[in-house]
Amino acid sequence: MKQKAVDAIRVLGIDAIEKSKSGHPGIVMGAAPMVSTLWTKFLRVNPNKPTWFNRDRFVLSAGHGSMLLYSLLHLSGFDLSMEDLKNFRVLDSKTPGHPEFHHTPGIDATTGPLGQGIAMAVGMALAEKKLAATYNMDAYEIIDHYTYALCGDGDLMEGISSEAASFAGLHKLGKLVVLYDSNNICLDGQIADAFTDDILARFRSYGWQAFQVEDGTDLDSIEQAIKHAQAEPNMPTLIEIKTVIGQGSIAAGTNAVHGAPLGSADAKNAKLSYGWNHEPFEIPEDVYTFYKEHVSSRGEQAYNEWATLFNDYAKSYPEKALQLQKSIKKVFDPIVWQTYENGFEQATRNSSQDCIQIAADNLPFLFGGSADLSHSNMTFIKNEGLFLPGQLENRNIQFGVREFAMAAIANGLSLHGGLLPYVGTFFVFSDYLKPALRLSALMQQQVLYILTHDSIAVGEDGPTHEPIEQLAMLRSIPNVFTFRPADARETVGAWHAMLHIKNAPSTLVLTRQNLPVLENSEAARVVNGGYIVHQEVGILKLILMAAGSEVALAIEVAKELEAMDISVRVVSMPSMELFNLQSAEYRESILPKTASVRRMAIEMAHPQPWYQYLGLDDIAYGITTFGASGNATDVLKKFGFTKEQILEKAKTLINK
Amino acid sequence: MKQKAVDAIRVLGIDAIEKSKSGHPGIVMGAAPMVSTLWTKFLRVNPNKPTWFNRDRFVLSAGHGSMLLYSLLHLSGFDLSMEDLKNFRVLDSKTPGHPEFHHTPGIDATTGPLGQGIAMAVGMALAEKKLAATYNMDAYEIIDHYTYALCGDGDLMEGISSEAASFAGLHKLGKLVVLYDSNNICLDGQIADAFTDDILARFRSYGWQAFQVEDGTDLDSIEQAIKHAQAEPNMPTLIEIKTVIGQGSIAAGTNAVHGAPLGSADAKNAKLSYGWNHEPFEIPEDVYTFYKEHVSSRGEQAYNEWATLFNDYAKSYPEKALQLQKSIKKVFDPIVWQTYENGFEQATRNSSQDCIQIAADNLPFLFGGSADLSHSNMTFIKNEGLFLPGQLENRNIQFGVREFAMAAIANGLSLHGGLLPYVGTFFVFSDYLKPALRLSALMQQQVLYILTHDSIAVGEDGPTHEPIEQLAMLRSIPNVFTFRPADARETVGAWHAMLHIKNAPSTLVLTRQNLPVLENSEAARVVNGGYIVHQEVGILKLILMAAGSEVALAIEVAKELEAMDISVRVVSMPSMELFNLQSAEYRESILPKTASVRRMAIEMAHPQPWYQYLGLDDIAYGITTFGASGNATDVLKKFGFTKEQILEKAKTLINK
Repeated sequence: MKQKAVDAIRVLGIDAIEKSKSGHPGIVMGAAPMVSTLWTKFLRVNPNKPTWFNRDRFVLSAGHGSMLLYSLLHLSGFDLSMEDLKNFRVLDSKTPGHPEFHHTPGIDATTGPLGQGIAMAVGMALAEKKLAATYNMDAYEIIDHYTYALCGDGDLMEGISSEAASFAGLHKLGKLVVLYDSNNICLDGQIADAFTDDILARFRSYGWQAFQVEDGTDLDSIEQAIKHAQAEPNMPTLIEIKTVIGQGSIAAGTNAVHGAPLGSADAKNAKLSYGWNHEPFEIPEDVYTFYKEHVSSRGEQAYNEWATLFNDYAKSYPEKALQLQKSIKKVFDPIVWQTYENGFEQATRNSSQDCIQIAADNLPFLFGGSADLSHSNMTFIKNEGLFLPGQLENRNIQFGVREFAMAAIANGLSLHGGLLPYVGTFFVFSDYLKPALRLSALMQQQVLYILTHDSIAVGEDGPTHEPIEQLAMLRSIPNVFTFRPADARETVGAWHAMLHIKNAPSTLVLTRQNLPVLENSEAARVVNGGYIVHQEVGILKLILMAAGSEVALAIEVAKELEAMDISVRVVSMPSMELFNLQSAEYRESILPKTASVRRMAIEMAHPQPWYQYLGLDDIAYGITTFGASGNATDVLKKFGFTKEQILEKAKTLINK
Repeated sequence: MKQKAVDAIRVLGIDAIEKSKSGHPGIVMGAAPMVSTLWTKFLRVNPNKPTWFNRDRFVLSAGHGSMLLYSLLHLSGFDLSMEDLKNFRVLDSKTPGHPEFHHTPGIDATTGPLGQGIAMAVGMALAEKKLAATYNMDAYEIIDHYTYALCGDGDLMEGISSEAASFAGLHKLGKLVVLYDSNNICLDGQIADAFTDDILARFRSYGWQAFQVEDGTDLDSIEQAIKHAQAEPNMPTLIEIKTVIGQGSIAAGTNAVHGAPLGSADAKNAKLSYGWNHEPFEIPEDVYTFYKEHVSSRGEQAYNEWATLFNDYAKSYPEKALQLQKSIKKVFDPIVWQTYENGFEQATRNSSQDCIQIAADNLPFLFGGSADLSHSNMTFIKNEGLFLPGQLENRNIQFGVREFAMAAIANGLSLHGGLLPYVGTFFVFSDYLKPALRLSALMQQQVLYILTHDSIAVGEDGPTHEPIEQLAMLRSIPNVFTFRPADARETVGAWHAMLHIKNAPSTLVLTRQNLPVLENSEAARVVNGGYIVHQEVGILKLILMAAGSEVALAIEVAKELEAMDISVRVVSMPSMELFNLQSAEYRESILPKTASVRRMAIEMAHPQPWYQYLGLDDIAYGITTFGASGNATDVLKKFGFTKEQILEKAKTLINK
């Protein structure tokens, strides 16, 4: 029966991929034994409560094997029908090409971009450890689950797997178990031509337990291996399971079965090899019975026991229980932020530090850190120490110089729930984490990205450290909210907004250098995205638009122009995304489309994002080359960002 | 004297950082012994011929230690004066904050973004291996040098170091030697709180030789270690050298000395601890004499011997010598490209495959591959096998699923010279390699990026595999030329242009799906960036602009509008960067700024880049959400990219 349960996964994969004429059968056929064993013997999930908080998590890091997961979900009784499987990769079906969080019940993470699944699993295991330390009391182990991931060679070739595994080893994440589907094949051919790491030694070097299962079709060996993994409390475990890709196909063991349907002849052949003689998409009742008993009934029982436990816990520790529930929903009382006087000078990274400190006092679920730059990014919660094994009460994560894993781990923390993660690095190194930011956005996860040292004003460190195109990059990613506040007040407004945008990541782009608090800046207006920070006198002639450190500069230029009797408005635009969400009337009130009014956008960055607000005769005053090393004053002048230089340019617009 | 030579580096570093009030003294003071030993005992460079082709390469992967390198260059007689050192981090000096290739003689790579230096060094060692196999004959080992890199903990925490090291192990790069400045400190504090890898075991797992020098001030041990490294022909070597960061400072061994000047008191204190009693920036003559003898004289002699060898080689093997010289300069005879008939249907990835094949036949220095997608990206040179140890005659590199290292290795190949690298991956995964593309651009390296599966037309694989914001990302990076050809002919034009843009990387963005060859497309017009691919009849009313697969769609829409007596022009825009480089007259001739002419840009991507060509009343027809999984026809319709849907939108513009 165990074998039949395995084969059911395989044939469902084969059939769905045949029907859709698209998909990856090889991994489904090769890895079915390990996932079937994991799900039927170990994984604690409740198909009727797919978001049960204390469920085991399962991340299919090799996301192209989506049919593996859809088959399991269907057979285990999740809300995924046979009809859904038949609609594999059909538009708007519940079975898209790669697993998508939010989209299909029972999917714990969106995967496909290789390597990130492992890092998200690390984040989930980290969340479990943090929450267990925070909430478990005496015998009440209300947070107590494993995190499993399935990965392939591709995941392990990606550098992020190394970053994440190193971090997991440091944090002794004993409840993380990674199954490595090791099949000697990559897309381009033999793995031996591309990847010769001694993978067990590599993972041991990170502080993991690592061992091999020689025969990936031997269900008992797989079961013993997972038991062995669970028995190690202080080290994450990698189990390398040797498999044959496309097991049962005539092309088994080659890259031919990786990414294309088998074709009807070979599909028949494979089924024959399994001794499977049912119609396509026909699953015998005893298979369903088997999965019901070994996944859903087992899971329901576990869930019920947990629910009873939690009830008792809530009676014994009502405050703790309430805090956990509020943390899961990320609800919090109104926060009283710091206020700042006009003219007060502070770098916005320091204003953000003020906010983090206040947020940390108000939000017990805030949890984060920086990629080895906490004292530059100003992300350290000052009255707490480092979060480390043995110091689990703290909330400052030291991610190390691992930007990409940091962001993916934050995604895992957020997906797990009960925590609101924030991360930090230099803005220019947002490049390193961009693929994970994209997944934050796609999965609609509230992850806060604190990105400091936001322009050429970085100065001495030079072009490698001076962002130019990064704002254009962030502002073009769907479902990312980017904030570039002009002063301390707008930084408060940005933090306030970010905490309330719960279905998207936010990026907060901050200065290294001091900025004055502006006369008319308002924290409360940041939610509008853009607003008038300097009102014109008389009939409007010119609108200067700017964000961040350039807003003060724009106001200075406006005052010079006013002295020449030119009527100028200055618009501060801390968030284009929020501005674009305002009503047409609001936007028109800020940026009137009057033929006689010229516009000029001012930002020390590539101007690409600003053209949406500019006509053909207007000016985007930005930077389209790389920066330079020197003191900030000299660098700003070199790139034209002084009052005098901008004024000259603005005059050309007026005289047109 | 050896010790004095070491201390000279330290004090120059201290003095320059004090003077500039900015910089990283800790690494200079800690790593001076290893670099001094390397340069005086081993490194073969000729300060009078800093670009000598067969010199040893040295990459300071820990680029924040720039004063280490500037001190060495100065002391060794490169064209870097004491005045230059005094201008450390001053605008437009030869001594910027991080080492910059092209900017300072003797700098082999721009570094600072951590991890990439190691990968570039891997690329240089790979280039040496490939060129040695190609050009060395009998006793003429005209290509025969080592590549050295110096890295810190931060480099090794970055995932790219893992990718690159794995690749280097696979390729048995025995002439690569990495010195690891292991000082137990990172920016945020103790390394033990962030990074606990058994680093020697980790590198051995990649197939490296790895060992430790326990005392990083012991010059003899360092010398022996480097000798030991050189003695291993088949494995790259990592030497972990234990050092004390900021050796000599009162804060030695702490993160306090990492990234800020010591201050005058501690600077004095450090000098005292070295027994150094000279004025700031004063170097005794015997130090110069020592470096002259042990670096420049030794290097000149090596150079002269090599020059004689190469002369003899050129006599014995004139064709080989000529080919090498032409390869270094990347000169080539005009290429006869394939031509295509109107209406011929081909995916542009396949058109690019045709070009690669022809380019490979014409350019012996073309060398590249894909990140495990060569048969999807269509990047495989068909009449050659894989480049692997024992198969060094081939030019197909299998990079594995390591996009970031791939691009950084390509930078190393290009920096080395003698090769023109190309790389490939799915367009959406350009995210993974973006930090290295940025360095290609900053270093002005001709690296060709082949990026396929360029839109939601990918279809079934769904949003994780469908690029949306990537075009905006590429088009905003300074000094990157992005091509999105509309058909096979424009693909040829793009390849032609890319081969001639020698001071910048190019990215070629290609379809998975077939596209028809357009009636009026021209390969020769691609260099103009944008051109009229469908001329209006009558008085121009509307300009449709598009790139790639949307150009054919735009022409279809134009024809429908013409049937309604609306005069429409279609502009194909294969490269915005090249278009923006054309004269104002040319641009006006293509996109006339006539008040009565409306414009509409059509691209299945985030529209951010198009607004520069649009007025406030025009339309950017793009996508600002993530894609979806389904067959391409369904997906295109869902996102509005059918003739009918675009036509409807265009009509609203006409009726305005």
